[in-house]
Amino acid sequence: MNKENFISQIKAASKAEVCDLVIKNITIIDVFQNSSFKDNVAIKNGVIVGFGDYEGAVEINGTNKYICPGLIDAHTHIESSLVTPKEYSKAALLHGITSAIVDPHEIANVLGTKGIKLMMDLSKDIPFDFYFMLPSCVPATSFETSGAVLEREDLLPFYKEKNVLGLAEVMNFPAVLNCDENMINKLWDAKSTGHIIDGHCAGFTNDMLNTYAAANILTDHESITADEVVERLRRGMYVHMREGSVAKNLKELIKAASIYNSRRICLCTDDKHIDDLIINGSIDNSIRMVISSGLLPETAIQMCTLNPSESYNLKNKGAIAPGYIADFIILEDLENFKIDSVYKNGNLVVYKNRLLYESYNDDFVYPSITNVNIRNLTKKDLEINLKNKKTLNVIEINPNKLESNHLKIDINTLKNTNYFESDTNLDLLKIAVIERHNNTGNMGLGIIKGLNLKDGAIATTVAHDSHNLIICGTNDEDMLIAAEEIKKLNGGTLIVKNGEVLASIQLEIGGLITGRKSADVVKDLKNLHCSIKDIAPDINFNPFLTLSFLSLPVIPVLKITDKGLFDVSKFDFIDIAE
Amino acid sequence: MNKENFISQIKAASKAEVCDLVIKNITIIDVFQNSSFKDNVAIKNGVIVGFGDYEGAVEINGTNKYICPGLIDAHTHIESSLVTPKEYSKAALLHGITSAIVDPHEIANVLGTKGIKLMMDLSKDIPFDFYFMLPSCVPATSFETSGAVLEREDLLPFYKEKNVLGLAEVMNFPAVLNCDENMINKLWDAKSTGHIIDGHCAGFTNDMLNTYAAANILTDHESITADEVVERLRRGMYVHMREGSVAKNLKELIKAASIYNSRRICLCTDDKHIDDLIINGSIDNSIRMVISSGLLPETAIQMCTLNPSESYNLKNKGAIAPGYIADFIILEDLENFKIDSVYKNGNLVVYKNRLLYESYNDDFVYPSITNVNIRNLTKKDLEINLKNKKTLNVIEINPNKLESNHLKIDINTLKNTNYFESDTNLDLLKIAVIERHNNTGNMGLGIIKGLNLKDGAIATTVAHDSHNLIICGTNDEDMLIAAEEIKKLNGGTLIVKNGEVLASIQLEIGGLITGRKSADVVKDLKNLHCSIKDIAPDINFNPFLTLSFLSLPVIPVLKITDKGLFDVSKFDFIDIAE
Repeated sequence: MNKENFISQIKAASKAEVCDLVIKNITIIDVFQNSSFKDNVAIKNGVIVGFGDYEGAVEINGTNKYICPGLIDAHTHIESSLVTPKEYSKAALLHGITSAIVDPHEIANVLGTKGIKLMMDLSKDIPFDFYFMLPSCVPATSFETSGAVLEREDLLPFYKEKNVLGLAEVMNFPAVLNCDENMINKLWDAKSTGHIIDGHCAGFTNDMLNTYAAANILTDHESITADEVVERLRRGMYVHMREGSVAKNLKELIKAASIYNSRRICLCTDDKHIDDLIINGSIDNSIRMVISSGLLPETAIQMCTLNPSESYNLKNKGAIAPGYIADFIILEDLENFKIDSVYKNGNLVVYKNRLLYESYNDDFVYPSITNVNIRNLTKKDLEINLKNKKTLNVIEINPNKLESNHLKIDINTLKNTNYFESDTNLDLLKIAVIERHNNTGNMGLGIIKGLNLKDGAIATTVAHDSHNLIICGTNDEDMLIAAEEIKKLNGGTLIVKNGEVLASIQLEIGGLITGRKSADVVKDLKNLHCSIKDIAPDINFNPFLTLSFLSLPVIPVLKITDKGLFDVSKFDFIDIAE
Repeated sequence: MNKENFISQIKAASKAEVCDLVIKNITIIDVFQNSSFKDNVAIKNGVIVGFGDYEGAVEINGTNKYICPGLIDAHTHIESSLVTPKEYSKAALLHGITSAIVDPHEIANVLGTKGIKLMMDLSKDIPFDFYFMLPSCVPATSFETSGAVLEREDLLPFYKEKNVLGLAEVMNFPAVLNCDENMINKLWDAKSTGHIIDGHCAGFTNDMLNTYAAANILTDHESITADEVVERLRRGMYVHMREGSVAKNLKELIKAASIYNSRRICLCTDDKHIDDLIINGSIDNSIRMVISSGLLPETAIQMCTLNPSESYNLKNKGAIAPGYIADFIILEDLENFKIDSVYKNGNLVVYKNRLLYESYNDDFVYPSITNVNIRNLTKKDLEINLKNKKTLNVIEINPNKLESNHLKIDINTLKNTNYFESDTNLDLLKIAVIERHNNTGNMGLGIIKGLNLKDGAIATTVAHDSHNLIICGTNDEDMLIAAEEIKKLNGGTLIVKNGEVLASIQLEIGGLITGRKSADVVKDLKNLHCSIKDIAPDINFNPFLTLSFLSLPVIPVLKITDKGLFDVSKFDFIDIAE
């Protein structure tokens, strides 16, 4: 805001100037008091300036409607949508989301600071506020090979950007617990410059929580039980209750919430695929779930407006009140959170499910990048030798959860006890994570249960957090072809059956997102989801996202990286067979 | 905090280092969740580092006790205590107050930036955190003569000080409403440097509130009704519920509070005399009143810990949680808020009503100042001519309230209709406000009802906000002697009867505070309060403080300055008689 606008909003508030817009006789959601009241709302220069009798250049009748602040997604990775911030915002605005705190962690793992800058550039000139947290752990751990390494010196210059709010989810907890110098420097830089630090406290003990809180790590979005919520809140942490495309924790977590502790509870998605966002919504749907749990609608709304705003020091945002930025939603119905229209900075951007703002900068030139830098693979590369071994360490996936289980299987129950072969009857499939950034030749092999492929293979370059190439298949031939086809695609996700690509989506920006329109991406995704039935008829969850999280060595229990099978509970590698 | 301490607290939290202090098995007040739970609390380097099993160099048994954050007075003027910040803090610590947001408005009106610096210097090296707001309106209005004028340029350098939080109570509301350039500059400087702006919304209409909120004025401590509280909270303002030595608003205001809206409610004193502070306490007593009103003790405590901390961006303060500064109180009893001991930065400073920390810097050299710069006055100066007038405009005081009433009295009911003479039967007394900073010769005369002096005169150099000399008497002779004696005293408060000083207190620092010990001040005050009975046998309120606020032209309705009788409702001067 500049001084002229500041003066103008004071003048409009004092009625010395006519307002731009007045919404009359509307029920105002008061997130400060968890209640509502009826009045007129006056707006000038994109800022709310007053309640009461105001004259507006435009006046709207709000009778029987509600005005609620624009929603804030407290933590999300835009890369998970597979589209650009621009395309993401179009879909999000339709659901009343007007701001998001984003962590460009995925693209930073592939492209480093260039990736962060690219996401910032792609976020400009859009009627949606993207706030950035700086990826704290690139690579997430030393147990995987990423495309870039971000040091303290790489992050420091970004703190001067006004839409950079702090340091993103600190997931390398041993580094914090052991006061690793690099990690301490990053924490100290954020703290000493007055920035926020996000946490990542998956499966934390209370001692670990103490350490994070003592390090001024302020938020966590990894709670999965109501008890965990209480322990984090006790320590003054903001709990981001997550309802994403893969991790759906809100129904369980909201049990811990009440009017007594709602103040430090926020709502977030963490990861949202564009098709899921378009069809099922985002934070708007979380609000409906919170209301269903028995909390007041105003409290549900507070959790994704005032609370994240206070937590991240977003000045003048997250409420309907004079001096606040005029990001708001007109609701037809409060209990069902039925959206009539959405305003960003006082401008109508969505009306009756129609996006009015289309004049985005569409001539952005994307950088040309080689996203899949690997050698040609052979069957030998995929060999898992079981000779003289007794037990197989198997990753068991949990549908719609990020956490995996660690199964131990007697090798004698397998048909081939010399070399592992995928077995669709036992649902034991071979999985490979192949380093794709620098052609190091690194490859981790493992066995997973629960994916239930009956034929062919699937592969993707979206594989958290280092985003190496991950392939899972019922036979080595299709796995090798999947690798070749991913290379041709220059990054993306695909399904192979009998040597043929059944469906694919190209993700030409870092192998993570595409510059294409959401509609095209949705078509590709639909095609993928239809085609998956050809090789996995009984699947009832998203196998590509599930696969994407199998390489994340900061989420319990058993994961796989390009360096091998990783036991998160031991924080070390283990053998496939022993 | 420095980086070494930051690392040390992380190490202590992770148990790599032994803690300094562990309080075992204590009930922890959880201000984040408005509840309590039992655990151990570990402290290292003055910071809380964890709950749970910790080893401490010192371990204390907390069984059957409670640990609560140190209290924060959200808004106060130390000058009102009549003592230095050092002496103030000694008394406040005994009542569990460990921090205060102070506005050196009074001394700034007398000494300008030198006064602000003096208060800052006097606040150093004390186990108590004084945070400063920069006086926004010196003089408060153009309707009085102060000892200094503070412009934008005078304030700007102070924003670099780390204990300066923002711009203090903006009381010149016409300047804001009319976008007066000087005022806008001060507001903009605070806003654009990320600082907080305090309000002063006495008797505001909702339109005026809109304007203040649109100007990003964040707080107000002038509510007197529950309805006013709701209107301010709706606009996102923090409501400071005041319970001071003169203005006692909490009992009425707390009716508006509930668990639904407690988040933006803080407790403050605004003005506290040292004797009142010592005897009746401060925010601790406000907590008892809030609990009596039916709110949870934890909610009452939240209002003077977490809430002011969030409001003023006091990092890591206002809660018992890892990473938070170890300012805390051990309570014997929660419902009655009975204090066992008080810790500041992890150090025991109060134990069983005894102050343990005495090693203050006592050799501070106070600047030598001529505080009462006036010529010799004569009876002629005090003359109020009533000839050809019909109605007398009389200030009626309200005991224990800052607001006065405007009485109109028929001159024919007076015994002398030519010149006003104080009349103790009618309780109509002459009052004079004499400019004392620059010997301008300015003098405002008026008539007050309600002070009930039966003999003699009282005088003080503590007269908000310009702190000119204010004298009220039953006869001109004693009023003139009071002026002379105040001059000899170099500032202070006194009682004169039949030409003799009955009692006095010297306030040699700006005519507002003294460098002497609290005990001496209390003795002087006791003497004043005893002696006042000699001239006002029926008085049941503090006449000196009441007098001090009669010259404040920003509080309704009728006030008096060195420039004359001031009608706050018209924001203009009126004649004594018309």
